[in-house]
Amino acid sequence: MEHLMALQCICCGRQYTPAEVEYTCPACGVRGILEVLYDYKRIAADFSKETLTANPDRSIWRYRPLLPVEPSSPVPSLHVGNSPLYPVDRLRVALGMSRLWVKDDGRNPTASLKDRASAVGIVKALECGAQVVTCASTGNAAASWAGMAASLGLPCTIFVPKTAPQGKLAQLLIFGATVFPVEGTYDDAFALAIQATARFGWYNRNTAYNPYLVEGKKTVALELAEQMNWQVPDVVFVPVGDGCILSGVFKGFVDLLSLGWIERIPTIIGVQSEGSRVLEMAWRTHSPLSFAPSSTVADSIAAGMPANGEMALRDLYRWDGRMVAVPDAEILAAMRLLGEKTGIFAEPAAAASLAGLRAALKRGWVREDQTIVLLVTGNGLKDVGSALSTVTMPNPIAPTLEAVEKALLDQTETRSSSKPTFGSSESVQRP
Amino acid sequence: MEHLMALQCICCGRQYTPAEVEYTCPACGVRGILEVLYDYKRIAADFSKETLTANPDRSIWRYRPLLPVEPSSPVPSLHVGNSPLYPVDRLRVALGMSRLWVKDDGRNPTASLKDRASAVGIVKALECGAQVVTCASTGNAAASWAGMAASLGLPCTIFVPKTAPQGKLAQLLIFGATVFPVEGTYDDAFALAIQATARFGWYNRNTAYNPYLVEGKKTVALELAEQMNWQVPDVVFVPVGDGCILSGVFKGFVDLLSLGWIERIPTIIGVQSEGSRVLEMAWRTHSPLSFAPSSTVADSIAAGMPANGEMALRDLYRWDGRMVAVPDAEILAAMRLLGEKTGIFAEPAAAASLAGLRAALKRGWVREDQTIVLLVTGNGLKDVGSALSTVTMPNPIAPTLEAVEKALLDQTETRSSSKPTFGSSESVQRP
Repeated sequence: MEHLMALQCICCGRQYTPAEVEYTCPACGVRGILEVLYDYKRIAADFSKETLTANPDRSIWRYRPLLPVEPSSPVPSLHVGNSPLYPVDRLRVALGMSRLWVKDDGRNPTASLKDRASAVGIVKALECGAQVVTCASTGNAAASWAGMAASLGLPCTIFVPKTAPQGKLAQLLIFGATVFPVEGTYDDAFALAIQATARFGWYNRNTAYNPYLVEGKKTVALELAEQMNWQVPDVVFVPVGDGCILSGVFKGFVDLLSLGWIERIPTIIGVQSEGSRVLEMAWRTHSPLSFAPSSTVADSIAAGMPANGEMALRDLYRWDGRMVAVPDAEILAAMRLLGEKTGIFAEPAAAASLAGLRAALKRGWVREDQTIVLLVTGNGLKDVGSALSTVTMPNPIAPTLEAVEKALLDQTETRSSSKPTFGSSESVQRP
Repeated sequence: MEHLMALQCICCGRQYTPAEVEYTCPACGVRGILEVLYDYKRIAADFSKETLTANPDRSIWRYRPLLPVEPSSPVPSLHVGNSPLYPVDRLRVALGMSRLWVKDDGRNPTASLKDRASAVGIVKALECGAQVVTCASTGNAAASWAGMAASLGLPCTIFVPKTAPQGKLAQLLIFGATVFPVEGTYDDAFALAIQATARFGWYNRNTAYNPYLVEGKKTVALELAEQMNWQVPDVVFVPVGDGCILSGVFKGFVDLLSLGWIERIPTIIGVQSEGSRVLEMAWRTHSPLSFAPSSTVADSIAAGMPANGEMALRDLYRWDGRMVAVPDAEILAAMRLLGEKTGIFAEPAAAASLAGLRAALKRGWVREDQTIVLLVTGNGLKDVGSALSTVTMPNPIAPTLEAVEKALLDQTETRSSSKPTFGSSESVQRP
């Protein structure tokens, strides 16, 4: 890995080679998150916009020269990345924003952005000869890790809060992972996974503990920039729990800026739930991160003590990013608005970026005429319960035309005026 | 649409222009399914393997010259198609088959193959100026139709059996569709949707009623052939309910054979559940289709009277296809095997193709050395309940290392010998 200069501790600045250290800085412990530093000059010698354009591989591995893996390492066959970037015409009209885009990362193999990190992580696991892999997760990272492990035949143990949504648990068990539902929070599961890693010699994918995950997550920014023909947007909205995706998005743009492929870093706005806002609070008050119990419908961004908090704060300050917190009710409303206006079904955490945009508009942080991208980080099918909690399940009807007519009439009467009135003489369509 | 010669009734053979008829043959009623006939000579004038290779569009619209839409019609922005074709190394080893592939169509926008049909259907709806669209469905077609309609702003009414899985209902409601859960079977919902279409003048997407859906579904075969560099596999396994995907797969290969791009039609094997085997029964006994109540865990392929049965039978006889029926238990076992060996989470109906392969191997219908493709038609997150019914949810543990050790020990004792034994001295890995 001659393109990789060092792993540097974000706390003390010490540098290590990848052979010297596996997870965090030995001097600083778990707070000492290691950042991967690249030799961009060396990378640029063989890697250009032109070589990229000529590469038919549409997965994240098209960015391999910017990833922390050996050039010859085998990669999992599950196809990660190349998620669509949509112009979302109807949402543009609804919000009066002419240059709004949505990047739907729920289209990844296990239906979340976490597949980007797991793909890179599992290559690192194979490189160091791992025989068992593990991680703690609120659900998506685990499902993704278990899926990658299944595709490669690596036994996988997973620690999740026992409250994880059924969809995510189902994925884990179908992928054959050994699952430990932990009586406690995500933070408890996180700590336990690290202890178990030390005790049993497993390979660990915990967010902000394993230094290579941010590198996988950054591919979403690389891809976004390429999809926009290297004209980066003005603002990108990113859902934030541990802050690892946030740092990944920054890192991707920093890579491209270092290579001279883009001219600036977009304004990145991280979005938390008001029920899990430790990072937003620290950023807003310029104070240290301070644990607070999390409680939010957006389980994927619930983190009482954001594991990647220090790095995320550093990135926010360095690149003039911002943080906003939104109520759960706004997140659920955003989930519906996104579904109704785009046909994209986002899990609550993933819809937080739209809720964040609406909050940022109110505060005057963004303007309607800016180029703005919302990152949708996971599919709504992951957490059907939350979706169903925001809608009214209609009553069953008898299989007769009369029953349909009556139901339409009832709905017309109770429905808000914004909905079409089916069955009225104006709206009936006779082809 | 000069590339489209006619719509031909599969019952009486009468031909119509698209302007003359919207759904089925006026002379034959709902049994008179119309088939789209193309002028392949005209198509071949502007469309070749070379023009296709040069086309950067990776969606189904790269096959637009073979689709029944006006050249200038706008298409929905949701990105449909380009689903991955995986070599599935570990499943190959497990089954002793060196040339097995899985095409994961659960990677479509609303997580099922039905998006291919809905995308084409919604373009037809727009072409004829529809103001409201409708359909009946066991769930996936409806979710897909509602998603496409949402992305384009078309009001959408949906008829589903009230027993449809929660995940599919959640999608419909989040996409803002007006949902009628029908007290009855899929067949009841199907008939009701057609009545409502006539009464209210909506545009109808019912399978085998709307003639353009098979054309959308066929893109999975076009894509598969292109992914295999026009060397078609020996056998393709396809889950079968109404038989519309089955006919779509045939149609795609027939198009390519007519263009001279492939040399033969693969053997297509349709797979039904033993609890919903009307088509398999008719094919096996060479008798007419005869209604039988359906009851299967694979809700997406439950059909008491397959709506596209006549066309499917015709295709099976014409091209030496076969049908096999498998027990629900085999379908659920296949769902687990697929998940554990590939990291692909299929809904029960989608895992039926793997169950069908195992049955066909036992019967000597296929050989281990043949090139075989399994079509996975929908994501398992659509129906988490079925997935959870096949696995054992582990008990929660306290967040302590002792609890982990005890759980590992318990699992080692109770686990089948095929599983790795965590924590034993042999398998513990100390990096």
